[in-house]
Amino acid sequence: MITREAVSELDRLDPLALQRDAFVLPRDKIYLDGNSLGALPRAVVARMQDTLQQQWGTDLISSWNQHGWIDLPLAVGEKIAPLVGAGPGQVICTDSISVNLFKLLSVVSMLRPDRPLVLSAADNFPTDLYMVQGLSALLGEQRLRLVQVAEAEITDALNEQVAAVLLSHVNFRTGRILPMAEITTATQAAGALAVWDLAHSAGAMPVALDQCQVDFAVGCGYKFFNGGPGAPAWVYAASRHQNSVQQPLSGWMGHRVPFAFDPEYEAGPGMLQYLCGTPPILSMAALDAALEQFADVDMEALRAKSVALGTLFLELLQKTELAAELRLLSPSASEQRGSQLAFSHPQAYGLVQAWIERGVVADFREPDVLRVGFAPLYNSYGDIWQALEALREVVAEREHLDSRWRERQKVT
Amino acid sequence: MITREAVSELDRLDPLALQRDAFVLPRDKIYLDGNSLGALPRAVVARMQDTLQQQWGTDLISSWNQHGWIDLPLAVGEKIAPLVGAGPGQVICTDSISVNLFKLLSVVSMLRPDRPLVLSAADNFPTDLYMVQGLSALLGEQRLRLVQVAEAEITDALNEQVAAVLLSHVNFRTGRILPMAEITTATQAAGALAVWDLAHSAGAMPVALDQCQVDFAVGCGYKFFNGGPGAPAWVYAASRHQNSVQQPLSGWMGHRVPFAFDPEYEAGPGMLQYLCGTPPILSMAALDAALEQFADVDMEALRAKSVALGTLFLELLQKTELAAELRLLSPSASEQRGSQLAFSHPQAYGLVQAWIERGVVADFREPDVLRVGFAPLYNSYGDIWQALEALREVVAEREHLDSRWRERQKVT
Repeated sequence: MITREAVSELDRLDPLALQRDAFVLPRDKIYLDGNSLGALPRAVVARMQDTLQQQWGTDLISSWNQHGWIDLPLAVGEKIAPLVGAGPGQVICTDSISVNLFKLLSVVSMLRPDRPLVLSAADNFPTDLYMVQGLSALLGEQRLRLVQVAEAEITDALNEQVAAVLLSHVNFRTGRILPMAEITTATQAAGALAVWDLAHSAGAMPVALDQCQVDFAVGCGYKFFNGGPGAPAWVYAASRHQNSVQQPLSGWMGHRVPFAFDPEYEAGPGMLQYLCGTPPILSMAALDAALEQFADVDMEALRAKSVALGTLFLELLQKTELAAELRLLSPSASEQRGSQLAFSHPQAYGLVQAWIERGVVADFREPDVLRVGFAPLYNSYGDIWQALEALREVVAEREHLDSRWRERQKVT
Repeated sequence: MITREAVSELDRLDPLALQRDAFVLPRDKIYLDGNSLGALPRAVVARMQDTLQQQWGTDLISSWNQHGWIDLPLAVGEKIAPLVGAGPGQVICTDSISVNLFKLLSVVSMLRPDRPLVLSAADNFPTDLYMVQGLSALLGEQRLRLVQVAEAEITDALNEQVAAVLLSHVNFRTGRILPMAEITTATQAAGALAVWDLAHSAGAMPVALDQCQVDFAVGCGYKFFNGGPGAPAWVYAASRHQNSVQQPLSGWMGHRVPFAFDPEYEAGPGMLQYLCGTPPILSMAALDAALEQFADVDMEALRAKSVALGTLFLELLQKTELAAELRLLSPSASEQRGSQLAFSHPQAYGLVQAWIERGVVADFREPDVLRVGFAPLYNSYGDIWQALEALREVVAEREHLDSRWRERQKVT
């Protein structure tokens, strides 16, 4: 039986424990939703103060050069690159995952003009599917269309009509990790390109884009990178693909010389061409500051703690009467899971709401999913202990069955 | 002869004079570049503090509902709408001008499938031209291609092949106002759609999108709206066009029910379909706060002051020996000018640099253009007086001919 003391000892021995102090965390909450919105790093508060008062307020337009605003997209990209196993010159921070996927899917269509299919998983994060659908409507199904199969059937579904495989490295709902190396190899063996969405893996575990020879990837700034709500996203294009085609969202910031105001577009070198319009500097500066937190972090140690937090959660859950009712949707083997756990339960909505009232923040996902995220930079083992104590009290007091949430509960 | 005292009297009588106190302005600068980057409103400082500490730091993920993050794109759009003459439900804040133009150009191509041409002005802001070029490369020139003519020849160039006319309301370089009503009417009479870029007009003068029956428009948040560097842009679609076609950047935030995580995209009602990915909340909150400044502003009074500032600049310029050397690129009639003046001069680069060293911030634009912007919310008539005094000293001391800027001067 795991005791409160044993849990405290885990925190005392945690090599990442000191990282927690770098975050502004609410005193009255246990936050298990860093996989939706990362917590606020203290460094961001100072950086935003400077960006507002000194850079924008005082130095005004000169800050584009004086404070490096113009270089931020590439600079932030280079901070992200080592965290996802990318060598220099392959990552840039820009736009949203959705917009970046549109760029990449267009590029895929140019690189594989005779192959109309984009293969994805039926339970991929919806925006990934939507962006294929949108481009397909624009180009026509003869040029591009979406094929969805189950995650486990991706490699079997490869054929000579497939231009690209578009998958999330970690499933947003179940947290299942897909084998990036294996699927990328199979994809390329079939003549297709591998496009990975790292929204739920980057910043929570080691990722090896270069080593897996991934073609393209996108990822998000506001989850495990703690860049703030709606932080700009990033895009990775392997060096070998950078000069062969030009993405179609050819806005002025991606021009080789934006301030020449040339009426003809000429793509900037390397990743610059993935820029489009003027980047949102306030949001990007916040992400830049947040990434400093990763400077000294060993991603293997981060992953080890992420796994340990999830394992502790499951072990402590066994001590509650809820254990028999919650159905684990995530893989039972920890090495197959990202930094989250998902369970289905007919009263999932009520559980999440009642848990929140006891100060524990997790996610409800339609139709009946309880999702718990672990952010190893700031979640402690003690957080997990307290979260489970609160959950036990919710169930003991039958708070999750309260009539206030009746309408959102799943009828079973 | 205009005296310093007469200029001070103009400030005393200025109905907008009190607005200046709402901005953080550097004590040692005269800022005549609000048409590139608007100054920092004090309201933004307070709003960012709250958005960081209370909303992100403390309330975390719940802020999407609790603090209305999810509603920001439409809420900011509704704040912008009356400033550009748009009735409710036609403006949303999202992405950049460039990305929004891509959405609109795609829509144009769907609405006018048998007309391949997008007609624009050769000296339109380059990103407007680049976005047509990018979409053209993706769709093929049979479906869409750019035709550039001189601003004055737009209506003459209309024909049955033209799908849309894409113009800036105010030219970014010369400041010339194009006749929106007249060109829109002629465009529609030729069966084409009118798409206007309001980057250099919105927030500086009254704009009448609905009254001119404009089809689509885009605009920027970081110039006269003072939303901060790279603030999110906005897009206008006339009600009559909102349900006929679907823009192709169909990201999850534009879905009718984003949190249903439906694998099939279904566009949200009205302007919601113009959303794509998760919006950058920090940057958008800054813009939202900045727009509060316009709540009590009479746009006619704003325009009157903008014209008066420009006129005063030209009058005071006549008293300097530079008057004969600077060639006015802007229309000489004030009613044809936006809130800026542009001059060509072989030593334009040196003039701008030496002026900056004397505390006056204006813009250099390739190859030989000196651009001066007037932000009537915070520029005073005294600013103009001091700017001209400084310019006279620059020329008297021949500071603009300093060898430090020799390489960037135009060889004449």
